[in-house]
Amino acid sequence: MDIAFVLYPGMTALDLTGPYEVLAPNPGVRAHFVAATPGPVTCDSGMVITAGSALGDLPRPDVIVVPGGSGWRAALDNETELVAWLAAAYPHATWTTSVCTGSTLLAKAGILTGRPATTHWSVRDVLADLGATVSTERVVIDGDVVTAAGVSAGIDMGLRLAAEVWGEETAQRIQLVLEYDPQPPFDTGSVDSAPPEMVEAVRRLVRG
Amino acid sequence: MDIAFVLYPGMTALDLTGPYEVLAPNPGVRAHFVAATPGPVTCDSGMVITAGSALGDLPRPDVIVVPGGSGWRAALDNETELVAWLAAAYPHATWTTSVCTGSTLLAKAGILTGRPATTHWSVRDVLADLGATVSTERVVIDGDVVTAAGVSAGIDMGLRLAAEVWGEETAQRIQLVLEYDPQPPFDTGSVDSAPPEMVEAVRRLVRG
Repeated sequence: MDIAFVLYPGMTALDLTGPYEVLAPNPGVRAHFVAATPGPVTCDSGMVITAGSALGDLPRPDVIVVPGGSGWRAALDNETELVAWLAAAYPHATWTTSVCTGSTLLAKAGILTGRPATTHWSVRDVLADLGATVSTERVVIDGDVVTAAGVSAGIDMGLRLAAEVWGEETAQRIQLVLEYDPQPPFDTGSVDSAPPEMVEAVRRLVRG
Repeated sequence: MDIAFVLYPGMTALDLTGPYEVLAPNPGVRAHFVAATPGPVTCDSGMVITAGSALGDLPRPDVIVVPGGSGWRAALDNETELVAWLAAAYPHATWTTSVCTGSTLLAKAGILTGRPATTHWSVRDVLADLGATVSTERVVIDGDVVTAAGVSAGIDMGLRLAAEVWGEETAQRIQLVLEYDPQPPFDTGSVDSAPPEMVEAVRRLVRG
């Protein structure tokens, strides 16, 4: 199983690292880090991750994982090669997935038209404008497409996908390996529970 | 504020990415990725992260973040330069932190002797043998040392630390940016809730 973990400048590292840490260690998986140009890719808060392959080197991955990032708007404008690769690779992939604003790239590639999908809460209208039927769920599985809400939701998405691919017991075991028994210190992780003025401040921040 | 995110071969990417994503974007933070040798560092499931600096280039960071990884045992044996750097840097740092088995490296550097600390559940005895007073809490704050349990606990640790450094409102806002409203699909993230045979299988896996 070839998994394409997609990289582009301005992505958020945790968007990708969540599902990667769940999916990559499993038997038979070949984890590929792919970008328009191979080499170092700088994430939105400075971490640098290496793309080992060009997109064109991996035209038919079995699983595709697309992260979001603070650079989501620039990516929508500039990552034309990535969007074209997604459109071409999707029909052949078993699973096509995104985390956070990464779903806007799937939508731009025409993969989400008329389909239920989720994204970071602050850009739901952007995803709707790109043709998706926006869900407020944390993880949305619609046939062969799996989308996750903001950043940390990629861990939940990865575990849900692992259960689909390898069965629940394997996914449960991975959850134990990752000691994923979260204890968020505050009740502000959701747009429904955070104070309205905080929601507005973060909305402005993420939308740029 | 200079934050040293420590890299070494065989580390787990998510251990570092969790606290990085919480801490690095804040105003005034300079995020440094440091390793014994600058350049690409390969994590335990294949992701390659670039160390921009050598340990010796950053002798006095304000905050230190040490990840764990499947390579924890080799790191204890081989990362002598890292352990010496930790021992020398710790007295000058405001906060010294670890995620998962990273606490064994803090312990080897003499930082945890007789102090409460946590680690991945499968190596609690190793941490005790290295002199720490092992806690089963997910995040332990003991003075200027903050340790987290396995892998995903680094997100909780980062948010707790952010609250200490910048105040609760900032930490709450970061939690909303990361949409950290976890929905683990299973009840197997803790050694207390997972089935005993699964616990034993994962223990053998992680301990190698």
